[in-house]
Amino acid sequence: MTMNIGYENLDALFHPRSVALVGITTSNPEHWTRGFLEGYLGLDFPSQGNLYLVNPRGGTVDGFKVFQKIQDIPDTLDFVVGLVPSRSASQLVIDAAAKGAKFIHFCTAGFSEIDDEEGKKLEAELLRTARKHHVRIIGPNCLGIYCPESRMSFSALFSPESGPVGFISQSGGNANYLIRQAALRGVHFSKVISFGNACDLNESDFLEYLADDPKTKMIAMYLEGIKDGDRFLRALKYAAEKKAVVMLKGGTTPAGARAVMGHTSSLAGSRDMWESLCRQVNAIQVQNLDEMTDVLVTLTLLTAPAGRRALLFGGGGGSSVIVADTFEKRGMTLPQVPKPVINKLREFSQDAGNFFSNPIDYSQSMDQANVKRALDILMGWGEFDFIVNFMVPGQSTRAGSFSGRVFKFDHLSRPVAIVIPPAFDPAEADGIFRYINHYVVAGYPVYFSFDSAACAINLVLTYNERISFRQGLR
Amino acid sequence: MTMNIGYENLDALFHPRSVALVGITTSNPEHWTRGFLEGYLGLDFPSQGNLYLVNPRGGTVDGFKVFQKIQDIPDTLDFVVGLVPSRSASQLVIDAAAKGAKFIHFCTAGFSEIDDEEGKKLEAELLRTARKHHVRIIGPNCLGIYCPESRMSFSALFSPESGPVGFISQSGGNANYLIRQAALRGVHFSKVISFGNACDLNESDFLEYLADDPKTKMIAMYLEGIKDGDRFLRALKYAAEKKAVVMLKGGTTPAGARAVMGHTSSLAGSRDMWESLCRQVNAIQVQNLDEMTDVLVTLTLLTAPAGRRALLFGGGGGSSVIVADTFEKRGMTLPQVPKPVINKLREFSQDAGNFFSNPIDYSQSMDQANVKRALDILMGWGEFDFIVNFMVPGQSTRAGSFSGRVFKFDHLSRPVAIVIPPAFDPAEADGIFRYINHYVVAGYPVYFSFDSAACAINLVLTYNERISFRQGLR
Repeated sequence: MTMNIGYENLDALFHPRSVALVGITTSNPEHWTRGFLEGYLGLDFPSQGNLYLVNPRGGTVDGFKVFQKIQDIPDTLDFVVGLVPSRSASQLVIDAAAKGAKFIHFCTAGFSEIDDEEGKKLEAELLRTARKHHVRIIGPNCLGIYCPESRMSFSALFSPESGPVGFISQSGGNANYLIRQAALRGVHFSKVISFGNACDLNESDFLEYLADDPKTKMIAMYLEGIKDGDRFLRALKYAAEKKAVVMLKGGTTPAGARAVMGHTSSLAGSRDMWESLCRQVNAIQVQNLDEMTDVLVTLTLLTAPAGRRALLFGGGGGSSVIVADTFEKRGMTLPQVPKPVINKLREFSQDAGNFFSNPIDYSQSMDQANVKRALDILMGWGEFDFIVNFMVPGQSTRAGSFSGRVFKFDHLSRPVAIVIPPAFDPAEADGIFRYINHYVVAGYPVYFSFDSAACAINLVLTYNERISFRQGLR
Repeated sequence: MTMNIGYENLDALFHPRSVALVGITTSNPEHWTRGFLEGYLGLDFPSQGNLYLVNPRGGTVDGFKVFQKIQDIPDTLDFVVGLVPSRSASQLVIDAAAKGAKFIHFCTAGFSEIDDEEGKKLEAELLRTARKHHVRIIGPNCLGIYCPESRMSFSALFSPESGPVGFISQSGGNANYLIRQAALRGVHFSKVISFGNACDLNESDFLEYLADDPKTKMIAMYLEGIKDGDRFLRALKYAAEKKAVVMLKGGTTPAGARAVMGHTSSLAGSRDMWESLCRQVNAIQVQNLDEMTDVLVTLTLLTAPAGRRALLFGGGGGSSVIVADTFEKRGMTLPQVPKPVINKLREFSQDAGNFFSNPIDYSQSMDQANVKRALDILMGWGEFDFIVNFMVPGQSTRAGSFSGRVFKFDHLSRPVAIVIPPAFDPAEADGIFRYINHYVVAGYPVYFSFDSAACAINLVLTYNERISFRQGLR
């Protein structure tokens, strides 16, 4: 009997007809185990599947009968979320298998990640039991599955909307953060797997699955360690040939590696190794979750620019200088606007306080009619590949609140990126959130700083250039 | 007659007994010229000096009589803010000089910064007139002076509180941004000069003045170009020997240099040159205004750590891994907590979900009593130079809003930095603003990302190390 049942069978994991939350607390609504119930209810799983709760105390929770034993459930089970103490994990595998479950996610911590022999023994026993009963384990020490299409969720705060991104995260907290940050920016997910200690199913299983999943157009990974280097290398190469892969490797420094050991019991690998690996397979390597969000925003919402020529258009003289420096330092070019085009702009724009060299500092003439006319003239010239519209609140002498005018860019045949810093000042927060939301709803990529925009756009341009280069070599 | 009257006389510029705002609009309260009146009233200048308004239309504004001519003012003048059109600037110099004014700030744009011979001619004529009438010019094309001590301000949004930072900014918008950002973080200013085209008084004059100003403990500069390289080099060396100098040079790329030309009519200089210059004189070079704010926060609020050993303490496993990597990549070391110390922490901390290796992931045991006990144990060990307390909202499965617990660190004999991302999610904004404000009011340095904290702390540590190294060589 081989236990390598292969990634192709994982499809069932993401489409269960019946799910049991085993070990959910009945007494304390504040207890963390309730988060899973909230997640499945928040995405309305019961509208398309059967949801069961199990706790030895019985009773009801949120109108759901709580079964005292998993054996009492009058149904077979496809997927079990294990919220039981680590010592009860193996017994749950046996009981769930008897109910037909093929997949069990163990949220439970207290296994190999703690610095203690007992935890390692329990995890080894858990795996042996799972193998024996033909059950696959997700975890332990993780948050499991978010799949909007099938209404599976480990948080009620996640969007019900599906999107193109598959995310494989060794950390549950980082999964929560990325999913919510990305949704605020208009980026949604096909499947997210928080997989923790990976005692059974691991990063390579999920990577191979997502590489072939037609609902997943790009793959993001937060990894702390890998279980089998050779297999992972093959899986990464395979996935990166088919889809954009965005990689955040945690634990590439000595202290980071120690944190990884305590967090998910993994061996981290060196920084140089990961950099060269990502370069070799053309995966997009990022340094933190915000950079990952920026890259996903760029991949999904900034329709691939034809090249590196940026037209920067926005408000404020000092800002214009800094944004120009930032984009050139990150490898973009800012073609100079020719004199005849500048003269056309001058005809109807206030002269003092505006300048037109690229960046176009248009702060003194910012109304929709002028902006449209100016952009139409610039499009008539057209020697740029994308537009960056920037706006920096807090530059004004008088405006304590922020009511940034929003513009329409739909008619332009160039991708447009929006840059606005996040809310630092409570007095500006409402206006900034409204501004951001306007552009997110309208489908634009929104970035929170000049540098984060330039960095993410550069990473994606580099990725695209490498694809073209390799295709050229074939 | 020499016109190099020297920086020592600038003291009068910052302490006028009488100020006239000439050219302020009488009809339109929304007009930008009103910002200066709001600024002087906002800081209550009339409580210690005489404020006069001038406009040919006369009348009253905000209860102030508006004089039709500057000659009508029944007082001598120390300082004039020129809000008149560029063509009237030279005449204003003559009239103001007749009233005794030694300093005129011209906010007016439309001089050498516009791509037009007329502007350059007007600026040259303005300077000739000023020389002839023994008047010094600040500007044109800038916002002028903010000096809380003497209640001068170009914005009502600025803090009335004085602080240790002198700021010389060629851009008015960047001055507005930095002053407000810094105040939100608990950093205040001695004097700020927005100096624009610098047709007369320039960056070197102000730098020499602030180097000797006892109210100024450190100097920040946003420069686009310099008027006299040799003199500036001497001034910078002189200032950097006496005080920390934080330098943001705009226009170090081709497009940035073009923007500089349109913005303040300056020649920018190359990136390499500025980098080597800053290294040579031990000025702290930063890449943008947020980094400048972070460095000022560090210099003023993170009592100089004795070394690079960081103790990271906070919440979230995935965050812990990333913060560890970030601080080590930026050149800090994270000493490993010894086993006996970890065992002491284990005695009263929940085991699963916490780890204690540095970073200390304390997310599962975060209450004031536990945190205090844990930090006391860690202080008993003490092999670290500073503490970074980190908190990342949005990692939680259940908390949609943010109500981060705040802790007391007063009893620790190590500097403490606070890291929390800014408000990205409207639902978390109130809680985050409260959290930030708590620590700012309590006098802690607060940073908005792992990387911005690590970057700024590294820059300041490097600055301190170079000072020690040079002193060692003497």
